[in-house]
Amino acid sequence: RTGWVALVGAGPGDEQLVTARASALLAQADVVVTDRLVPRGLLARLPADVRVVDVGKTSGSHPVPQHEINQILVEEARAGRAVVRLKGGDPYVLGRGGEERLACEAAGVEVEVVPGISSAVAVPAAAGIPVTHRGLARGYTVVTGHDELPALPTGGDHTLVVLMGVATLRRTAALLVEHGRSPAMPVAVVESGCTPQQRVTVGTLADIADRAEAVGVASPAVVVVGDVVRLSHARTGAGTMP
Amino acid sequence: RTGWVALVGAGPGDEQLVTARASALLAQADVVVTDRLVPRGLLARLPADVRVVDVGKTSGSHPVPQHEINQILVEEARAGRAVVRLKGGDPYVLGRGGEERLACEAAGVEVEVVPGISSAVAVPAAAGIPVTHRGLARGYTVVTGHDELPALPTGGDHTLVVLMGVATLRRTAALLVEHGRSPAMPVAVVESGCTPQQRVTVGTLADIADRAEAVGVASPAVVVVGDVVRLSHARTGAGTMP
Repeated sequence: RTGWVALVGAGPGDEQLVTARASALLAQADVVVTDRLVPRGLLARLPADVRVVDVGKTSGSHPVPQHEINQILVEEARAGRAVVRLKGGDPYVLGRGGEERLACEAAGVEVEVVPGISSAVAVPAAAGIPVTHRGLARGYTVVTGHDELPALPTGGDHTLVVLMGVATLRRTAALLVEHGRSPAMPVAVVESGCTPQQRVTVGTLADIADRAEAVGVASPAVVVVGDVVRLSHARTGAGTMP
Repeated sequence: RTGWVALVGAGPGDEQLVTARASALLAQADVVVTDRLVPRGLLARLPADVRVVDVGKTSGSHPVPQHEINQILVEEARAGRAVVRLKGGDPYVLGRGGEERLACEAAGVEVEVVPGISSAVAVPAAAGIPVTHRGLARGYTVVTGHDELPALPTGGDHTLVVLMGVATLRRTAALLVEHGRSPAMPVAVVESGCTPQQRVTVGTLADIADRAEAVGVASPAVVVVGDVVRLSHARTGAGTMP
């Protein structure tokens, strides 16, 4: 029997946003190697004989280093097992899926990559914020960290999505203003997006860091900057169906 | 009985990339208002009593104008029907989902937005190209058209994805070089991504327009620019599982 690895995007946290392909592969898995930000119900429903290896970061402990994750995937597949590597969001959006794929290919292990709903678009959407909208924004950029901020378009009509940006929110907002964005430009921070715990904090580049601090914003959260933030449910009062 | 509208992302064209929520809503629909770029199998499997309204662009005929689509959604829901508005990719990624949502809200019609797998990430992925990859790209930008190209980062370490960019490919490549990208920067054009007809054409900003013309590249296609194109299956010879 030949083992294989599937790098599967589990979406932003809502089990209903998992794809048919992801479900089909999970149903075939002998081993599931999972991250922290994966819908827990998916794992709870696995048959008892499926082995779950959690390589995600947990409070108080460090995550398993990437090279060790790569090694686990290759070794399990070489032992003839069907391995699903379950990742929050999409494997190729800041998810290091490329590294895992290359490690499998280098080892001669069959590997499939299954896209998932990315938090970069779905979490703003869950707060009522479309990353593009006619008359407001024709394009968007997704980054993590600060290195690229100075080179990005500065208009409110180009949406900026920052992933993993809570800890550095104050610096991000200051940098964006320093490099040409208006201090009055709207910003939203969406915590625990697409889950029942979702919370949206809205402000401007000038005051979002103070507002976030005041309410104790914490990871995981997605930061959205641009005119499209005006469409957020937090501003319009609209909601989604129960 | 109260009608409702769900704006549902159908993903990039592969039926297996549809979410559980999309399938659940389709199973409840009285009316499905669909675009051209939606997996045909999804529509073929609908019960015979579900009415399908095709508002997409077809060769030789014009698409239904946006304000008429909005009107159809509102009127069907007001007549007490369960309406699924099925859209290729994700409703909020250049899909005008925001306009449809606002039209429903303005009319007092209950509306839910269900994200879909966006072609912007999944089509490059199907060609082996991760939009981000450690050491190659830490962020990415998605645009359509030309207006934003001059203001974007110019390094190969920031991936650019252009949707609906086939007709304007030559102008896009020239503009990017004019505004600072290297003529040697790799580019891929992925036609009919995530379908059995997928075809990948790889080149550089200097030659991609000629290469695409030589092989007769046609819409729908996704254009990817940046160093991550080096990881494409077309270059590495790797493939995906059958």
